[in-house]
Amino acid sequence: MRDVAIIGAHQTKFGELWDFSFRQLISEAGIGAIDDSNIEGGNLEAMYIGNMTAGLFVQQEHIAALIADHTGLNPIPCARIEAACASGGLALRQGIMAVASGYHNIVISAGVEKMTDVVDATPAIATASDQEWEAKQGATFPSLYAMIAKRHMYEYGTTREQLARFSTINHENAANNPKAQFPFEITIDQVMNSTMVADPLTLLDCSPVTDGAAAVVMCPAEDAKKYTDTPIYVKASTQASGTMTLHDRKDITTIDATKVAAKKAYEMAKLSTNDIDTVEVHDCFSINGILAIEDLGFVEKGQGGPSVEEGITENGGKIPVNPSGGLKARGHPLGATGIAQAAEIIWQLRGEAGKRQVEGAEIGMTHNIGGTGGTATVHILSR
Amino acid sequence: MRDVAIIGAHQTKFGELWDFSFRQLISEAGIGAIDDSNIEGGNLEAMYIGNMTAGLFVQQEHIAALIADHTGLNPIPCARIEAACASGGLALRQGIMAVASGYHNIVISAGVEKMTDVVDATPAIATASDQEWEAKQGATFPSLYAMIAKRHMYEYGTTREQLARFSTINHENAANNPKAQFPFEITIDQVMNSTMVADPLTLLDCSPVTDGAAAVVMCPAEDAKKYTDTPIYVKASTQASGTMTLHDRKDITTIDATKVAAKKAYEMAKLSTNDIDTVEVHDCFSINGILAIEDLGFVEKGQGGPSVEEGITENGGKIPVNPSGGLKARGHPLGATGIAQAAEIIWQLRGEAGKRQVEGAEIGMTHNIGGTGGTATVHILSR
Repeated sequence: MRDVAIIGAHQTKFGELWDFSFRQLISEAGIGAIDDSNIEGGNLEAMYIGNMTAGLFVQQEHIAALIADHTGLNPIPCARIEAACASGGLALRQGIMAVASGYHNIVISAGVEKMTDVVDATPAIATASDQEWEAKQGATFPSLYAMIAKRHMYEYGTTREQLARFSTINHENAANNPKAQFPFEITIDQVMNSTMVADPLTLLDCSPVTDGAAAVVMCPAEDAKKYTDTPIYVKASTQASGTMTLHDRKDITTIDATKVAAKKAYEMAKLSTNDIDTVEVHDCFSINGILAIEDLGFVEKGQGGPSVEEGITENGGKIPVNPSGGLKARGHPLGATGIAQAAEIIWQLRGEAGKRQVEGAEIGMTHNIGGTGGTATVHILSR
Repeated sequence: MRDVAIIGAHQTKFGELWDFSFRQLISEAGIGAIDDSNIEGGNLEAMYIGNMTAGLFVQQEHIAALIADHTGLNPIPCARIEAACASGGLALRQGIMAVASGYHNIVISAGVEKMTDVVDATPAIATASDQEWEAKQGATFPSLYAMIAKRHMYEYGTTREQLARFSTINHENAANNPKAQFPFEITIDQVMNSTMVADPLTLLDCSPVTDGAAAVVMCPAEDAKKYTDTPIYVKASTQASGTMTLHDRKDITTIDATKVAAKKAYEMAKLSTNDIDTVEVHDCFSINGILAIEDLGFVEKGQGGPSVEEGITENGGKIPVNPSGGLKARGHPLGATGIAQAAEIIWQLRGEAGKRQVEGAEIGMTHNIGGTGGTATVHILSR
């Protein structure tokens, strides 16, 4: 198994991009990543595309072949990888495996979602849950995560303000990220007084509906310096599955798939939480950001809320979380998120993150989940 | 890169399976393959699911996690792979790469499609073509392949009877396959006089709408004899992309992706067409079976029609094609087809194919394509 390095990354602007089509978005991300990696497009040997549901959002399946065709990459092998909101993270992982195996040398993993071409994104997003046991009974994702939040508040005394603070920190970071959907600050009062979505979660606890794409290019670690002075090395790439439905869990305040994937990642990288300088977590809702820092081991179970309040997740804190602005403020184009997270960590480790740079970041982590934790994937990257 | 062997295979009955749900079908296939491989389910380390569009057929994405959960496989990593009708072949390929890379030891690759739960499958199937340039202009798959057939007839003198003969040979084979959707013979007259779908293709030139699932279990070749006396070795696993749309092709009677994938497969396996004892080709329409035997190199370009007429593709002929009955008569549950093809070749190479056994088969091939050839994947397997 060969070591793998990432040599290029790109992310489109995230937002409601009425002027960009699905194929334009992914093309921009791919071409940007190729440019950034100093390779020629003709050197690419394979492509993996993370996408949750282009079938429902833009009535198009077979998207990997479409993208290869549209970007002039034929005849290289291309596959779409789907695991709901973890599709991007899994596309990254498949790309890493393709290089590690020796099947391919230079591989691009990308993610894309065009969510604003439908009147209502909710039914499409709901297909990430168990249709028979959850969605068709009326449980949308905000309501599922609201139940988790309520239980976390009951079990551990997590406060409404602590949830809101997770969102405001994301926005503080996004204010320095020109590619973020919401590059501005918000206050705790604004979060708490925004429209109620599913008690206790208000609109500003929820990640938005977003169009966007991102891509990274990777190669065998031993070849990376041919292309870039700042290769980023893949120290761990892990994934785990968990129950699709909340009613099957012993404890809905823990996402087992995150715990399993994280444990394997620390083992694979021979590192611990103390070694991680910054992490991009999957905060589709504020409560999920708090679950993530607990389940990844950065704070004790139940201490997510107070830890956020104390400021340890701020840039400059003990473990800066979501320097990009996270799903909440950078935006959450479902299949693109896992790749955008990796791109942010790559820029942080290269020292290219501008005003949102985490000082001296040498090792970073990404955490991407599907549904309410049916899938989780964790990557550890280092300079 | 490690060598890989397949140690177990299973296919559900294919057909209009009103009494089986999506999750029942895939569970039966998976459990059957696990049983056949003499492993314990707990030994599986990863799962890949080929599926084209559960989002549109059963309003469910995130299906790999769903299946892992439903079959008790949590927390192993699971991913859905999508490349239209080649989804199964690509899931097989990802499984092979996962073992070859050393990331995982025992891996299951499966495919599933539940197509009969919608009133009309055509709009969902059409998402395998380029929506903007083909489907939304009214081009369905029968019409696209009808254009290919017309051109092949014009260029090479292929006859209506030759197309029909491809279907009747499939049915002769399926008559000996109890898992086939249509396990009975049909005549050339019946094909030619069946309902016109898109001139020159009639109903009996077209593969049906099918529910079904299939699965295979693989492990490092060096470990295979621990589990089975008859491991089947993966000699080549290749894939290529081609143009999504017919209007972009220099020649619509050739599928370039098939040619590229086949050439790479022969190189990877260090074999030639003469070494292949039997092949499962992607005959979604009769014309595509004829294209396949040409593009895979079994006959000269343009000689597909006469070759079928001469009988070389029959069981007992020079190159027996689709001993299972093929997509036409075994059935074509989109994402399951590539895995079902592999299962058939595995049974053929083990000598377990009963009345449809190809005498002395030692090396076999599968050929699975997406759309009109936007994706093609080829596998060569041997005893």
